[in-house]
Amino acid sequence: MMRNIKLTIEYDGARYLGWQRLGNSDKTIQGKIEHVLKQMTGEEIEIIGSGRTDAGTHAHGQVANFKSNTAMDPKEIIEFVNRYLPRDIVVKMVEDVPERFHARYNAVGKKYSYYVWNESIPTAFERNYSFQFPQQLDIDLMNEACQKLIGKHDFIGFSALKKTKKSTVRTIDELSIEREGQLLHFTFVGDGFLYKMVRIIMGTLLEIGSGKRSITTIDDIFEQKVRSEAGETVPAQGLFLDEVYY
Amino acid sequence: MMRNIKLTIEYDGARYLGWQRLGNSDKTIQGKIEHVLKQMTGEEIEIIGSGRTDAGTHAHGQVANFKSNTAMDPKEIIEFVNRYLPRDIVVKMVEDVPERFHARYNAVGKKYSYYVWNESIPTAFERNYSFQFPQQLDIDLMNEACQKLIGKHDFIGFSALKKTKKSTVRTIDELSIEREGQLLHFTFVGDGFLYKMVRIIMGTLLEIGSGKRSITTIDDIFEQKVRSEAGETVPAQGLFLDEVYY
Repeated sequence: MMRNIKLTIEYDGARYLGWQRLGNSDKTIQGKIEHVLKQMTGEEIEIIGSGRTDAGTHAHGQVANFKSNTAMDPKEIIEFVNRYLPRDIVVKMVEDVPERFHARYNAVGKKYSYYVWNESIPTAFERNYSFQFPQQLDIDLMNEACQKLIGKHDFIGFSALKKTKKSTVRTIDELSIEREGQLLHFTFVGDGFLYKMVRIIMGTLLEIGSGKRSITTIDDIFEQKVRSEAGETVPAQGLFLDEVYY
Repeated sequence: MMRNIKLTIEYDGARYLGWQRLGNSDKTIQGKIEHVLKQMTGEEIEIIGSGRTDAGTHAHGQVANFKSNTAMDPKEIIEFVNRYLPRDIVVKMVEDVPERFHARYNAVGKKYSYYVWNESIPTAFERNYSFQFPQQLDIDLMNEACQKLIGKHDFIGFSALKKTKKSTVRTIDELSIEREGQLLHFTFVGDGFLYKMVRIIMGTLLEIGSGKRSITTIDDIFEQKVRSEAGETVPAQGLFLDEVYY
């Protein structure tokens, strides 16, 4: 009987070209997982991710599903894949789900984290998991900027999308900043995020916090809907896909 | 004027053969730092570490010193070395110290951490920074064992030393266990640790906690002073040199 199997996946993206399989390249997360599932099942497997992550971006809780006739139970599957996957990709959970479950179409929200190393001296351990930004930051002002971003808006000006006919209206439910020593932890929760939206918002927040731009530019970007108004895109290495909501 | 300069160093040991320079090998921490300091000063530099760390072992606060005639101030030195060192080695602090300061001879104590990933499912992010031990552990019993180890003892039975004429008596001031999710954090503070002592104590504690050996074997090892009585040596990758006390 054809099963529909859901995977919850953790990965350190530092060595990879991102989530999405690229031809026969071995350097994508999707490619690595499909390769092991093909070995396991003897079937042609295609996994559907909740969304792509860019080169260097990490995940604590990426979700994907695939169809298979395998007779292995979830415990056997998790043991097999984690034995054969590279050590920087780990399947944390395997569940049978209803036939119609689709990791991308059924996602109703996502949680991302972005980490900033806010010190002039670099970090050996967080080097692949944060973006070093040594300037002093006005956290109160950045929190004010977060309040302007929370809610339902057209985020086209904060995305790297070309013109699109699809809606670019999204709702951000949470955008918060927490200091953990020299590390600043930004949390984003929303119903969906446009291409590079988290990283462009992050760049804009850092420019506001360091005095390079005024907090009112957020209103301007919402009004003018042009990406060129927003801040730089920060590097992918500080970004984590923490959770996908269904 | 000949200066004596103290470095406090953080490193991710995953890619290295350990602290100590080995001939002309480029794969040691000491070798990498000396190479950059030679470039900086034009002098033949030899740095003295507080002690060696094994291949794969990490440091948050290794300490070293070196003699130099350089006229650069500490701020210039820290900027230069961090610009040219590999990103997994970071000099956190540079200080001028009295001529007689010696990073090894003057150390009066050290703090180490060891991390155990206590779950059957592996970890993508802690894979190089912890030892996976999936069996259930009796933490109360391990804490009792820690109490037996704290204090002044001859630790020869917990070391990989060959016979030695030097004293193998050491004092452990703190040995504690903290659970941080699936990660167990063991803290060791003492006046000094023999070769592989932390890793052999760790192996013994894990065997006690998982029921493979009785807690009384600690008394036996202290009495019989034979390494073969103690537990396995756990891998170097879970070990961090956190701090050196002077």
